[in-house]
Amino acid sequence: MTLSRRLTAEALGTAILLAVVVGSGIMAERLSGGNVAIALLANTIATGAGLVALILMFGTISGAHFNPAVTLSEAWQRNVPAAEVLPYIAVQVLGAFAGVAAAHGMFGEPLFFASEHVRTGPAQWWSEFVATFGLIGVIIGCSRSRPALTPFAVAAYITAAYWFTSSTSFANPAVTLARAASNTFAGIRPVDAPGFILAQLAGMGAATALFCWLYPAPPADA
Amino acid sequence: MTLSRRLTAEALGTAILLAVVVGSGIMAERLSGGNVAIALLANTIATGAGLVALILMFGTISGAHFNPAVTLSEAWQRNVPAAEVLPYIAVQVLGAFAGVAAAHGMFGEPLFFASEHVRTGPAQWWSEFVATFGLIGVIIGCSRSRPALTPFAVAAYITAAYWFTSSTSFANPAVTLARAASNTFAGIRPVDAPGFILAQLAGMGAATALFCWLYPAPPADA
Amino acid sequence: MTLSRRLTAEALGTAILLAVVVGSGIMAERLSGGNVAIALLANTIATGAGLVALILMFGTISGAHFNPAVTLSEAWQRNVPAAEVLPYIAVQVLGAFAGVAAAHGMFGEPLFFASEHVRTGPAQWWSEFVATFGLIGVIIGCSRSRPALTPFAVAAYITAAYWFTSSTSFANPAVTLARAASNTFAGIRPVDAPGFILAQLAGMGAATALFCWLYPAPPADA
Amino acid sequence: MTLSRRLTAEALGTAILLAVVVGSGIMAERLSGGNVAIALLANTIATGAGLVALILMFGTISGAHFNPAVTLSEAWQRNVPAAEVLPYIAVQVLGAFAGVAAAHGMFGEPLFFASEHVRTGPAQWWSEFVATFGLIGVIIGCSRSRPALTPFAVAAYITAAYWFTSSTSFANPAVTLARAASNTFAGIRPVDAPGFILAQLAGMGAATALFCWLYPAPPADA
Repeated sequence: MTLSRRLTAEALGTAILLAVVVGSGIMAERLSGGNVAIALLANTIATGAGLVALILMFGTISGAHFNPAVTLSEAWQRNVPAAEVLPYIAVQVLGAFAGVAAAHGMFGEPLFFASEHVRTGPAQWWSEFVATFGLIGVIIGCSRSRPALTPFAVAAYITAAYWFTSSTSFANPAVTLARAASNTFAGIRPVDAPGFILAQLAGMGAATALFCWLYPAPPADA
Repeated sequence: MTLSRRLTAEALGTAILLAVVVGSGIMAERLSGGNVAIALLANTIATGAGLVALILMFGTISGAHFNPAVTLSEAWQRNVPAAEVLPYIAVQVLGAFAGVAAAHGMFGEPLFFASEHVRTGPAQWWSEFVATFGLIGVIIGCSRSRPALTPFAVAAYITAAYWFTSSTSFANPAVTLARAASNTFAGIRPVDAPGFILAQLAGMGAATALFCWLYPAPPADA
Repeated sequence: MTLSRRLTAEALGTAILLAVVVGSGIMAERLSGGNVAIALLANTIATGAGLVALILMFGTISGAHFNPAVTLSEAWQRNVPAAEVLPYIAVQVLGAFAGVAAAHGMFGEPLFFASEHVRTGPAQWWSEFVATFGLIGVIIGCSRSRPALTPFAVAAYITAAYWFTSSTSFANPAVTLARAASNTFAGIRPVDAPGFILAQLAGMGAATALFCWLYPAPPADA
Repeated sequence: MTLSRRLTAEALGTAILLAVVVGSGIMAERLSGGNVAIALLANTIATGAGLVALILMFGTISGAHFNPAVTLSEAWQRNVPAAEVLPYIAVQVLGAFAGVAAAHGMFGEPLFFASEHVRTGPAQWWSEFVATFGLIGVIIGCSRSRPALTPFAVAAYITAAYWFTSSTSFANPAVTLARAASNTFAGIRPVDAPGFILAQLAGMGAATALFCWLYPAPPADA
């Protein structure tokens, strides 16, 4: 695949991912009559199902990272050339913001408006560390043993992580930045974004080191 | 497969799809005690699961389009002969209305009654454009890279799209026409149908053009 | 596989299926605080997930029918010898009652007690016809084209059918008889069982005839 | 795989499993506004999805037991050397407690605090017998016929078993011990743990004996 196709896939996939996360959050909050558990359940099911579709749809083009933490981990494992890391991350971030704007347009909201949703403190940072550690572990473990099932493993993991972390598992720096521009169910205050991103990068590093030891050699073909 | 078998599969599959969408909407609204989020969640799970079953059940006969937008996109890609486009669309529309009548019969409603559910305006048209763009993208992307998983990718996508679009993702002209004949949870006013269908066709066109560039050649075998 | 192993698998599988249907219905009703939509949603998810597990667990031994309508349809297609039809049905019915008793034991209810849940009338009979027609269609269509995915197709179909039929899709004579012995969420009055069973057998017959024409020859290998 | 890798996988996998079970229980209880059905539904979906991810992620390293009952059953079938049984169980128990502490940390709770959740009596012990019997049956049946699908079968089974047993299906001695150290939604009083564990071991024994008769020889290759 040419680089232009891969970057288009990363941008478009990340955009649709954010449209799913933010759009389903708005719909869920509007319909749930104040029951946050029902709203998060709908948001969870939409996100998990959306990830299955998106990874199956774009995986063979670009790897379907949609996430700078994944791209950095793949580059660390030499699955992505170092020269492509910055282009990947740039289009992921641009795509993420475009997806937020697309979702806001579908629900009659302003294209961007800063979130006032407070998400900070050690419990949430620890949550983001754990969430990203697990996500990178799932990707390395599954792609080195049964890669055809990775789309389902990743979607299932995120479905669980929305509930078992107190932060609802952002686990993605591009997602974190773009959700800071959405004052809706899925938002995060801009001032809280750096803490989340640092915790995510730490979790990514720990998982990449540990899982590369656990799975020493990828299969030659899959 | 003979054309008569393929048209029977398209008619029957579209009929069951509409029975699922409309029937589960009626059941969900009756049981949910006014909580629309719970009703839509049940409607979503029934529709997503029903799509898995229907595409696995009819896919090898007719391709399991159940949707004029899909048939037009496949004809554009020369996967369906031009002479079969109108027959496909005709049986899809007939099947869709039959499915609505079957659902109404299961719940003791009149066979057909015009919907009064208002669904209009730019946010909803943009939603239908995005919903259909994504659906066609999933079908092209997945069927050109891992076709055995397309039934799951399509069902997962629609599960997400019920929630991330403000229109709940009709994404199907035959479905739109038939749901105009159901004054229930899933209905749409007849006067609002043309706007939805135009947006769906625009989304179909954009996705077909873009994804045929992204995936230049289908695999010889899958 | 020997006949004794196959009959054991049918008896045990049908027993666990009924334990799932009846047990999750009791749990759901007790916890849902009167919201029937939430109760049915939990009952649906438990039943769909249970079917995936049970069909994967017993399918290669006995075919995982768990249902006299399926056994009759398979015998019609000459996939099951005529001499085995009655033994299959006998152990399915015995297993179904054992499963109801097992579920009642888990929830501190009497082993058997006749249901007072009224389920009758043309709309419900039509629902059972449609539900069983679709179930047999899924089984024939999927097992003649991609048999490895039949467990998922059947479970997905039943998940949808709990919601799109007004009868919540019994679609199984053995299940119908045994649920008449449970005065809980999943029950049916004994006097209403014959109407359900007749509608199920009619739906089975129509689907077997139609789908054997749609799929004229099973694949030699799958 | 070296033993150190396998023990790391068992410890880490069991830890994440407990973090999922306990963490999602806390989140569900906090958000559900007192509707226990909604809380258990969220807990169920998170656990089922988490199991898919965890078994796909660690299965090829250690077998992904995460459960002393599974390890004992596998040793009985001579799939695990006798000398490795105690190390497996030891790291499962340690991992389970670590996972509970990790979850508590994510939600700002004390690392450990004894549960006051009463779970005892014949109906619950019978539930744990049935739950573990079915779990071991799913594992033996599926791994001896279509092992690639075992992760999905196990996760689907547990999803159902949360609802069809009155005990919500612990089915795992390590999980039972660790949940005694969490006074949250998923907890169990320490004094009630031995009854659960004895019932689990009895269910494991019955299932291993029966399913080894049902499936006399595993396939040579899968």
